[in-house]
Amino acid sequence: MSNIPQTYRRVVLVRRPPGEPAESDFRVEEVPMPEPKHGEVLVKVAYLSLDPYQRGRMRDAASYAAPVGLGEVMTGGIVGEVVKSSSPRFGVGEIVEDRLGWQEYAIGGAPTMRKVDPSLAPISTANGVLGMPGMTAYFGLLEVGQPKPGETVVVSAASGAVGSLVGQIAKIKGCRAVGIAGGPDKCRYVTQELGFDACVDYKAGNLAADLKAAAPKGIDVDFENVGGEILDTVLMQMNLHGRIAVCGLISAYNVTQVPQGPKNLRAVLTQRLRMQGLIVFDWANRVPEAIAQLGQWHKEGKLKIREDVREGGIDAYPDVLNLLYTGGNFGKLVLKV
Amino acid sequence: MSNIPQTYRRVVLVRRPPGEPAESDFRVEEVPMPEPKHGEVLVKVAYLSLDPYQRGRMRDAASYAAPVGLGEVMTGGIVGEVVKSSSPRFGVGEIVEDRLGWQEYAIGGAPTMRKVDPSLAPISTANGVLGMPGMTAYFGLLEVGQPKPGETVVVSAASGAVGSLVGQIAKIKGCRAVGIAGGPDKCRYVTQELGFDACVDYKAGNLAADLKAAAPKGIDVDFENVGGEILDTVLMQMNLHGRIAVCGLISAYNVTQVPQGPKNLRAVLTQRLRMQGLIVFDWANRVPEAIAQLGQWHKEGKLKIREDVREGGIDAYPDVLNLLYTGGNFGKLVLKV
Repeated sequence: MSNIPQTYRRVVLVRRPPGEPAESDFRVEEVPMPEPKHGEVLVKVAYLSLDPYQRGRMRDAASYAAPVGLGEVMTGGIVGEVVKSSSPRFGVGEIVEDRLGWQEYAIGGAPTMRKVDPSLAPISTANGVLGMPGMTAYFGLLEVGQPKPGETVVVSAASGAVGSLVGQIAKIKGCRAVGIAGGPDKCRYVTQELGFDACVDYKAGNLAADLKAAAPKGIDVDFENVGGEILDTVLMQMNLHGRIAVCGLISAYNVTQVPQGPKNLRAVLTQRLRMQGLIVFDWANRVPEAIAQLGQWHKEGKLKIREDVREGGIDAYPDVLNLLYTGGNFGKLVLKV
Repeated sequence: MSNIPQTYRRVVLVRRPPGEPAESDFRVEEVPMPEPKHGEVLVKVAYLSLDPYQRGRMRDAASYAAPVGLGEVMTGGIVGEVVKSSSPRFGVGEIVEDRLGWQEYAIGGAPTMRKVDPSLAPISTANGVLGMPGMTAYFGLLEVGQPKPGETVVVSAASGAVGSLVGQIAKIKGCRAVGIAGGPDKCRYVTQELGFDACVDYKAGNLAADLKAAAPKGIDVDFENVGGEILDTVLMQMNLHGRIAVCGLISAYNVTQVPQGPKNLRAVLTQRLRMQGLIVFDWANRVPEAIAQLGQWHKEGKLKIREDVREGGIDAYPDVLNLLYTGGNFGKLVLKV
């Protein structure tokens, strides 16, 4: 039996941030250790996953999931170890993954909780290539983007958790993979380490011309993580009957005013584009298929990953989260708890 | 044999209009009557179709069709009578339809030219319900919008050539049809004559609230003809997995600055919407199917139509065309030549 303390700490939302989340929007509170009831387990959190969608949960607006209530624990995926069990499904010592929030310990056992096999890959990947980001890339690219061999796939935030996988899956499927990332280091990583055919540094100031050079036959599939000027530039280079899989619009997540939409929306009409939003929940019944395929590709060396593991425990909020919106992370952002 | 004059008149584009097309952007020229060569016919134009897409052809920009060259005849659909034939496919006296441009006579005979049966409906409908607008509504709603019985379909420019048919086809398919139109007369027509379930007058100043009242269960399919503020309002009321068939963005056709895109694009992501552009050309191989079905519905009284026939011949350009962008027409706009 692990040495379980009497109390643990968790991060609760106390104010809805108008712009960039700040420390004053949260409170760290220390609370008594709970006891798992029938069917439940107590999980000691090892890694907390930081993902762009979390900004949306701080907003009191209609979205695909209910907002985090004021005074409630901030939402977030975790990987951890079962340290007490009243569930027939999970034993003490097993590694599990679920969206249990920004805290050191948590009660789990819901149907969404799944076991993680530590012999397959480092357990933190259960929040990466073998978790939500991996499935987002897998279903988003293949089901919404529907790339065909020989087509050109562009992905923004290309060195990030999702984008890095999108380009590598595009390569597996016989496509030309073009990334968009910020700075020469990330671009070098995207082409040299991940094997994309090209990467455009949007910070270099020649986005339209550089993208044209990187995708000389035009763009058939855009996997959109950023929005704003990047989406506008991509729109003007989309081929007839192209597909835009809208996974994220990071550029607008922290703005205080309602963002302007794409100026070049007319391209949707003239090029008969299909622009479609995606949330990984929509393929919840196909999780095992995706994890098996992603695991196999990862094992075969076809899906390289990079984690940006930050130390400091839950006290490192929200600075670590904000790295996602400024491009300050390099790889899948994870907080070690 | 008809009495064929020695010359005829036609409208050529001489300047690309920066904003609203003006008379000075065109020239009427009188030219010698041409002789049909082998395979060709000479057509006397009876009706010239005025449609929103024509503004796009005046623009020197990438689009789904090449722009009209300076000094070339303005493009446009026509219905007319064959008055001379060197084609085995068309005899003198037959009525034909093709995109032969703004002129009194024209050489035809291309594979795109089709015969019109004057016993089915007034021949002007070959540019309306039994032509391009009809097929746009048919394929756009059914193939892109994919409405299911019981769903709510919203269409903007609801009293226009395409919009009026979209709502009526939605009713045929068992949907709730909600129109958006300008002014009480058009709205009355849309509900009382065409049988839509509701119509919202966007000029009344309460678009969001009125649309909510007209579509209380939210919007499953939007057939978008207008864009701008109307699209932004619709986006905020779309249901999960809704479809937006982008047929036109009339609100932006005459603007001189690059228009701002939809502020509420985030709804595409959160509601997993599919926004897809459509051009009727994409179903060129299914024209007979559409015309047959539309003709049958029209005959059965299920598709009511209204034509706005303007007199004045080709000299009435471009004022008549501009009615489309200001909402000045009421029904399918046609010029009698």
